[in-house]
Amino acid sequence: METEEVWEKIRELKPEIEDEIKEVIPENHHINYLYDQVHYHLKTGGKRWRPALCVLVCEALGGDKKKVLPFAAAIEIIHNFSLIHDDIEDQDEIRRDKPALWKKVGIPRAINVGDGMFAKSFVSASRSKEVGLSYQKSFKLMELLSKVVTSLMEGQAMDINSRDRLDITEEEYMTMISNKTGSLVGGSLMGGAIVADASDKAKRNLREFGEKIGPAFQITDDILDFSEKKGRGGSIGNDIREGKRSLMVVNYLQTSDDPTDLIDILDKPREETTERDVDKALRLLKKNNSIHYAKEKKNKLAREAISKLNVLPDNEESRYIEGMAKFLVERNF
Amino acid sequence: METEEVWEKIRELKPEIEDEIKEVIPENHHINYLYDQVHYHLKTGGKRWRPALCVLVCEALGGDKKKVLPFAAAIEIIHNFSLIHDDIEDQDEIRRDKPALWKKVGIPRAINVGDGMFAKSFVSASRSKEVGLSYQKSFKLMELLSKVVTSLMEGQAMDINSRDRLDITEEEYMTMISNKTGSLVGGSLMGGAIVADASDKAKRNLREFGEKIGPAFQITDDILDFSEKKGRGGSIGNDIREGKRSLMVVNYLQTSDDPTDLIDILDKPREETTERDVDKALRLLKKNNSIHYAKEKKNKLAREAISKLNVLPDNEESRYIEGMAKFLVERNF
Repeated sequence: METEEVWEKIRELKPEIEDEIKEVIPENHHINYLYDQVHYHLKTGGKRWRPALCVLVCEALGGDKKKVLPFAAAIEIIHNFSLIHDDIEDQDEIRRDKPALWKKVGIPRAINVGDGMFAKSFVSASRSKEVGLSYQKSFKLMELLSKVVTSLMEGQAMDINSRDRLDITEEEYMTMISNKTGSLVGGSLMGGAIVADASDKAKRNLREFGEKIGPAFQITDDILDFSEKKGRGGSIGNDIREGKRSLMVVNYLQTSDDPTDLIDILDKPREETTERDVDKALRLLKKNNSIHYAKEKKNKLAREAISKLNVLPDNEESRYIEGMAKFLVERNF
Repeated sequence: METEEVWEKIRELKPEIEDEIKEVIPENHHINYLYDQVHYHLKTGGKRWRPALCVLVCEALGGDKKKVLPFAAAIEIIHNFSLIHDDIEDQDEIRRDKPALWKKVGIPRAINVGDGMFAKSFVSASRSKEVGLSYQKSFKLMELLSKVVTSLMEGQAMDINSRDRLDITEEEYMTMISNKTGSLVGGSLMGGAIVADASDKAKRNLREFGEKIGPAFQITDDILDFSEKKGRGGSIGNDIREGKRSLMVVNYLQTSDDPTDLIDILDKPREETTERDVDKALRLLKKNNSIHYAKEKKNKLAREAISKLNVLPDNEESRYIEGMAKFLVERNF
């Protein structure tokens, strides 16, 4: 499947997901500061590919799209809640080329807006009952959501904790990004499978798909930070300026004879990191084969993830899902 | 019922609630920084009277305590999550006479710890199924929790928003504290009623009880800020230093001929507010009858709340609930 077709499908599903989000987060609400700011953040962009995957899996397995939309919206709301809080925690000032919410409204309000979205994601999941699911399925979706968000928070805890560490292992790193990225994608697919009454084996495979494609997506994102195309204020190497521990950095720290040069650059305060520092970091990572290593790892994860999709029936939706998986790890957006 | 008997009952229930919390937030977890810090916060104190109310209502209505404990724990976890985030948002450095979590571990980690508790409160509520409730009741409890926490966040939004305002009306103020305090207490009672299969009328009354006793509790708390006994680092008038809009302040702003003197004190940065300022504010509020007004309002709310308890059968647990209601608005802790 061509990339353009996948894009088209995601774009096609987006309005229904947006409408579903608005069911629980109305525009022009009387507590305008809270919900207006949610919409400010939501309008910074986002492709809504996670809820799109949720809907497509449900349909691929013969489920009813209408019944999965509240849960799909819940996944997207949780994702955006985590971006708002992560930006505060990481002091990231730019989100999707616009000021991060906390830069716009201050930390206290941004925390509260994130919390409001957290709450609303559960309200959205609880709408599953209203759109015709049984108590059992509605409960299982809410239970799933609470597990997903626990993983997210544990992943973020590991992430914050690992920033000062030089001895983080690849295994620890992979556990962390699997929590931070894989659980949400896995949860999105599991939700679709629950609504569609899929077998336990199908659910397990789909969860494993998410747990692999999520990290593959993250590694792709980190590699893209060195390319011109990613955006983020147009500058490359932002992760280096932030001292972020990516798989490339973890690999370098573990395999280079003397990682001091890179560590010095990563540990510099962001505003003191020069273009030359970024260039040097890039050269060091390349010379040590760490970028190549990350690409290989990402490809391996993607292959393993896609192999898990064999539980899906052979139909159009399944082909979109496979296309989307490839797209997520080969993208340049 | 004597205050001491109510205390004794709360103390008696506390260990079971603590054990239930540990079911979802284990001590000595491998992600120690996240869960250790939750326990640091939980150990700063707290009477656990909200979950105690939840358990007592369930028992008063003939329900099984074992089946309500996961939801009762969820209520307590949510309450503590909100304290952690509120302390950051309000820059409160002291919580229950100890450094607030964010002062101890920094804002990024404290946000994440709060989020982790938020997630775990839903995990706790989802345990309702495991302890023997039906899918229907388990779903209804999770749905209730998502509504409760939405109210909390809306209340906090209104609170942050009202801080710079001089024209806040009593009605707006009451809506705000009903959201911030009443919804959690109401939710706690509603949860107990759901588990015990209470009638819709009983549920409605109990929710209304919470919506009245919560604000009455908050007003009591604000009045206590002027007494020696409250603690909070032993000093009185902390709310004045923080510029907090309490019912007393709202009443003063609305009824005093010239509120400028009080506004000047409230608007001073906390560290510049002197003992004399606090004394003066207290005198102004007294002279304007605003403290008396708040006491009357609180007593009225408490009477109305207690009248709602007529839906409870005449038994020992019901007497504890009524005793607790009186205790919450007549306390000096």
